[in-house]
Amino acid sequence: MLNLSIHSIQFTIEIVATFAFALSGLIAGIRKRMDVVGLCIVSGVSAFGGGTLRDMLLDRRPFFWVSHSLWLWGLIATCLFAMFFMRERHIGLTEKAIQIPDALGLGLFTALGTQIALELGMPAIVAALMGMMTAVFGGVLRDICCNEIPKAFSDHQPYAVLAFLGSWLLIGLTALNLPEGLILFLSASFTTILRVLAIQLKWQLPSQRIIKP
Amino acid sequence: MLNLSIHSIQFTIEIVATFAFALSGLIAGIRKRMDVVGLCIVSGVSAFGGGTLRDMLLDRRPFFWVSHSLWLWGLIATCLFAMFFMRERHIGLTEKAIQIPDALGLGLFTALGTQIALELGMPAIVAALMGMMTAVFGGVLRDICCNEIPKAFSDHQPYAVLAFLGSWLLIGLTALNLPEGLILFLSASFTTILRVLAIQLKWQLPSQRIIKP
Amino acid sequence: MLNLSIHSIQFTIEIVATFAFALSGLIAGIRKRMDVVGLCIVSGVSAFGGGTLRDMLLDRRPFFWVSHSLWLWGLIATCLFAMFFMRERHIGLTEKAIQIPDALGLGLFTALGTQIALELGMPAIVAALMGMMTAVFGGVLRDICCNEIPKAFSDHQPYAVLAFLGSWLLIGLTALNLPEGLILFLSASFTTILRVLAIQLKWQLPSQRIIKP
Repeated sequence: MLNLSIHSIQFTIEIVATFAFALSGLIAGIRKRMDVVGLCIVSGVSAFGGGTLRDMLLDRRPFFWVSHSLWLWGLIATCLFAMFFMRERHIGLTEKAIQIPDALGLGLFTALGTQIALELGMPAIVAALMGMMTAVFGGVLRDICCNEIPKAFSDHQPYAVLAFLGSWLLIGLTALNLPEGLILFLSASFTTILRVLAIQLKWQLPSQRIIKP
Repeated sequence: MLNLSIHSIQFTIEIVATFAFALSGLIAGIRKRMDVVGLCIVSGVSAFGGGTLRDMLLDRRPFFWVSHSLWLWGLIATCLFAMFFMRERHIGLTEKAIQIPDALGLGLFTALGTQIALELGMPAIVAALMGMMTAVFGGVLRDICCNEIPKAFSDHQPYAVLAFLGSWLLIGLTALNLPEGLILFLSASFTTILRVLAIQLKWQLPSQRIIKP
Repeated sequence: MLNLSIHSIQFTIEIVATFAFALSGLIAGIRKRMDVVGLCIVSGVSAFGGGTLRDMLLDRRPFFWVSHSLWLWGLIATCLFAMFFMRERHIGLTEKAIQIPDALGLGLFTALGTQIALELGMPAIVAALMGMMTAVFGGVLRDICCNEIPKAFSDHQPYAVLAFLGSWLLIGLTALNLPEGLILFLSASFTTILRVLAIQLKWQLPSQRIIKP
């Protein structure tokens, strides 16, 4: 019973977060004045690109969007809906509204991706990389499709680095043999909370300061 | 006898269309003042990128250009030939001349790609996506290599969307158990004819109109 | 004994060259004012992207950085070190200093990549392409991440083309049934020496001259 409700919470977060990732692609596409094809593909890449790249690197099949192909219909419906009903003033609002679901997705998808890689026997650093990639590389591929330097590489806000930390927490807790569901919950919450703090407190990443000699 | 000639027609279209895709890459490379290496690679990516990406996603081997490696020689020869003999006035002409073979390729490669995905047991929407990707993503990868927003996402002309429709026609006809050759012919012709109409009648895709609130 | 020292030479070159590839990514990232995440990922893509792409195309696992995951730690350490200690005047010096190790890597990774593809039974032209890709496509992916047209396609300096020639030398020598180590040495030296000559003598690739009609 409890287990069931945990699963429904996880499933709800997955839906909401995937939706948030798709919307980030939609907004990026609208900003570049893409047509309906571009909007659908960039949304899809944002939502499923990270997990797909991870699965290609790990040689894992079927992809999520193959075994759950209904989600592709949801994606197309979202893009068509947005195309007809989204107004300029909605864009900023949407961007703000997806920050929390995006943070939830960052935590959950990182934890899930790391677990998948660990189960396949990957070394810890590779598992951490795969976890981070699951959550972050949809956005990287989105920005490449939009002909931008990926925001995750250059906006100096802690995002991928928090996913990386969350991966390591999951790896550490797994080594302690805690129950799998608890590990997932702790790691995902940790990353999500850090991300929300980073947004609220406007944390900045250190970066290469090019100092004159 | 009839079957043989159908196969030679299909084979002829494949050669002509692949050549058209390669030339689109060549022109894009020339416009970016690439060197001979860039021209060859961007032409190759334009010609074979869509099918290769499809095969990587479907975990299918060998790639077309591995089992038919003679085509790579043809590609290199074409690029070298173009480098020495193409003049500025030829570029516009070539672009115009490849519109029809490109439309033939759009139809045929979409239909072939969709059939391949269906045979591997993919759900209909995934098969339609793979069909579209086969014909369209060579151009997408070409534009990413040229540091441009992919034309297929942003030029507001019906291209990928017609491939998508053609995929669905093929899927529908397959469900009716028509002979495979006929299905291929009908779907490919449908997409190609729509594409030629779209060019002639200057159809425009609907797009997100950012309306002031 | 002799064999052992040959292996240590090869291993040393691999380390030095991978380090040079990673530094080229680091410099490109610094130029684009990336944060620590961007620097690490772009360095990693530069160092391991070519071999990873080759292995994905050849459906080969595990990747180098999975079976030798210690290298990922080295990469992260390098990027953190550079972030804190690199000054503007170091960038030009580094770029100059990595030219020779980069040329060594071009030769060695091309030869190794070609050998891998030949062992998997690829046709000669595909093996040559895979060899070239191993050494060159890390840089191509680096430039795509940095939102630039890949230098390998557009800087009109002989780089990929020398790798391609080195691949063919290896393929020819393999057909002559020479000992494997000797073949590797000859092909790698050939490419490296040509590359050093190309830098010293400022060779230029022929390119499409757009001549007015």
